[in-house]
Amino acid sequence: RINSDRLWDSIMEMAKIGPGIAGGNNRQTVTDEDGEGRHLFKRWCEAAGLEMGLDEMGTMFARREGTDPSLPPVYVGSHLDTQPTGGKYDGVLGVLGGLEVVRSLNDLGIKTKHPIVVTNWTNEEGARFAPAMMASGVFAGVLDQADVYEHVDKDGKKFGEELERIGWKGAEKVGERKIHAFFELHIEQGPILEDEGIDIGVVTHGQGLKWLQVTLTGKEAHTGSTPMPKRRNAGLGMARVIELVHEIAMDYQPDAVGAVGHMQAYPNSRNIIAGRTVFTIDIRSPEKEVLDAMDARVREGIDTICDALDIKYQIEQVGHFDPVTFDKNCVKAIRDAAERLGYTHRNIVSGAGHDACWINRVAPTAMVMCPCVDGLSHNEAEEISKEWAGAGADVLFHAVVETAVI
Amino acid sequence: RINSDRLWDSIMEMAKIGPGIAGGNNRQTVTDEDGEGRHLFKRWCEAAGLEMGLDEMGTMFARREGTDPSLPPVYVGSHLDTQPTGGKYDGVLGVLGGLEVVRSLNDLGIKTKHPIVVTNWTNEEGARFAPAMMASGVFAGVLDQADVYEHVDKDGKKFGEELERIGWKGAEKVGERKIHAFFELHIEQGPILEDEGIDIGVVTHGQGLKWLQVTLTGKEAHTGSTPMPKRRNAGLGMARVIELVHEIAMDYQPDAVGAVGHMQAYPNSRNIIAGRTVFTIDIRSPEKEVLDAMDARVREGIDTICDALDIKYQIEQVGHFDPVTFDKNCVKAIRDAAERLGYTHRNIVSGAGHDACWINRVAPTAMVMCPCVDGLSHNEAEEISKEWAGAGADVLFHAVVETAVI
Ligand SMILES: NC(=O)NCCC(=O)O
Ligand SMILES: NC(=O)NCCC(=O)O
Repeated sequence: RINSDRLWDSIMEMAKIGPGIAGGNNRQTVTDEDGEGRHLFKRWCEAAGLEMGLDEMGTMFARREGTDPSLPPVYVGSHLDTQPTGGKYDGVLGVLGGLEVVRSLNDLGIKTKHPIVVTNWTNEEGARFAPAMMASGVFAGVLDQADVYEHVDKDGKKFGEELERIGWKGAEKVGERKIHAFFELHIEQGPILEDEGIDIGVVTHGQGLKWLQVTLTGKEAHTGSTPMPKRRNAGLGMARVIELVHEIAMDYQPDAVGAVGHMQAYPNSRNIIAGRTVFTIDIRSPEKEVLDAMDARVREGIDTICDALDIKYQIEQVGHFDPVTFDKNCVKAIRDAAERLGYTHRNIVSGAGHDACWINRVAPTAMVMCPCVDGLSHNEAEEISKEWAGAGADVLFHAVVETAVI
Repeated sequence: RINSDRLWDSIMEMAKIGPGIAGGNNRQTVTDEDGEGRHLFKRWCEAAGLEMGLDEMGTMFARREGTDPSLPPVYVGSHLDTQPTGGKYDGVLGVLGGLEVVRSLNDLGIKTKHPIVVTNWTNEEGARFAPAMMASGVFAGVLDQADVYEHVDKDGKKFGEELERIGWKGAEKVGERKIHAFFELHIEQGPILEDEGIDIGVVTHGQGLKWLQVTLTGKEAHTGSTPMPKRRNAGLGMARVIELVHEIAMDYQPDAVGAVGHMQAYPNSRNIIAGRTVFTIDIRSPEKEVLDAMDARVREGIDTICDALDIKYQIEQVGHFDPVTFDKNCVKAIRDAAERLGYTHRNIVSGAGHDACWINRVAPTAMVMCPCVDGLSHNEAEEISKEWAGAGADVLFHAVVETAVI
């Protein structure tokens, strides 16, 4: 078994970097705080005898040599970046859980045939720069590196320039590594495991997602002196689309979810009818057909809404992944580990996207989940217990070691 | 008649300060640009032989002495501050129209019994700091000076400190001046005069307004892994309130308008359900009963919406004025001037709030309006013709001179 105290202490140490305002973290991707977190992780890896690799997307690969260095490594990890108002565990548990696997192997003097590589993927959250799971997406050949370098944050700063600025742009070409298998430990971010009192989620599938960034263009005008019939109100248009997305998701739930979390009105003045609004629709389903049907209904609905309000629209897909089925053998390795260790477990579908979802396209991949309090995530109050984290890391440890072969 | 070329040139000169991005202006109140605009206005006033007064709210009072200096002055003016994406005429026409009245009197060598004071009221727009018509509101004793000094902009900067910072906080106590009468020239900001081909709006009434700043508090959560029934979505709540305000206004129109122009979601991330939204409802009517009924329906509707979504709300009234009836004699002075000069005219109700609405409570007041293209205002594309401006200033000139008595 792994050392859950050490794992917990490391998580708490990492949480000191980029503290939030309510007990969580604001360590958004390629900020100074992200750079600081990376330095801490690197020091820990070096202390554990790992050799650090860094690719052009800033993804960190800390390698523990195998007894047969020519074999492709088993990868284990997640991400250290957070939401602007994120929790201490989302992503961090998976990276430091991977580090704990290696530390435990060191403690026990165990050597594996395959090398093991603890990985920190850049920009998983997609909060500062869309899309989410950016670096793993480039690694898997789904996203274009030159293109995502140009993606801008709210202040117009480019991802590629910010990565360079914080000093974590590596020289290694992205996606050339051979991966024997990839395992990711993550908090559930949903309520099922806690509600059912189950220790371990064996993740068999992941939901698909679409992010549609919508720009509505009406006409700025005075809120007081412009007659109601003369208005071309882009704020009202946005309100109607937010309701539309909710209604569509409600029609398909529990097999779908949908919301708008990002929204901006221009010029955002109390007495100016918004001339322009920009917002991002987030729709998801474990069924590709449902996701496609939702997408079609959203687009049709936007057309109708804008027609009625005499406003123009533009829709840009800024994120997308199809539903994922994880690798049978990797999933089995996780289920067997949970069984062997005596943890209660159940199959589960990931509601969130993860780096594992992209890596699954290029290598056998699976995920372990542990419960989180009230299913809450993307909230500074995100919480888990040391025992939950320990159980998840135990299962990760066994699955990794079995796959890397002693 | 006034010199419409000189008036137009001055407007264009002022428009160079705080240029917008689309041909209009961004010269928001108590910014550096506002300071620069004030300096230009002051230089022009001094060149016209006026003596500048400045009160603790930063309002500028440029006095042309009367033949009987003991008589209370006739005031004429408006405001030089603009919206963040404002036009070149909203407010500016009224201040520089007042200056043109004095310049024309100088040209003609006319002396009036009552002094004439050209006035630039601070923060009429209410864009950066609520409420609108702030300085005239304090002057009229409706707003509390110490209170509005504490009002903050989006960056948390205080009005009082910003006024001091730009160097335009005067020593004169606010509201102690005796006013014989106040006249304000303004563009209509609505489509009636242009549609009907009429030169002059004789403003008999002003619409009442309420600004309700609403804060909705739900719970930040993951857009992907949070089941639909578990959500407490403050973004969806805001969308429903925006629609509610629109529906209520549509029910009462043409005797009412309503919209939400200012809206903000927190933390405003694509994959976080908004845990908090803050936005301002703007409802108006020329009938006090209608305004009160709308206010009640809005509050009731918010309660119902929030109840259904399991979110909390807070409503703060950040702006309010009752419908206004302008002074009979001042209104008559304007109508008579239009008639005498041969301009077509009609009675009109102001859809927007104006400094004249507050000053009307402490002194006989009225307004002149000229058409604006397509009724458009609070938009950088706001446009008027030199002839329209000239006609408005002619009427202003005659009304002021008749009231100040030769
Ligand atoms: N796990 C996680 O929160 N990933 C962010 C991408 C998403 O929104 O699903
Ligand atoms: N005239 C004008 O636009 N005033 C601003 C206050 C309002 O919103 O009516």
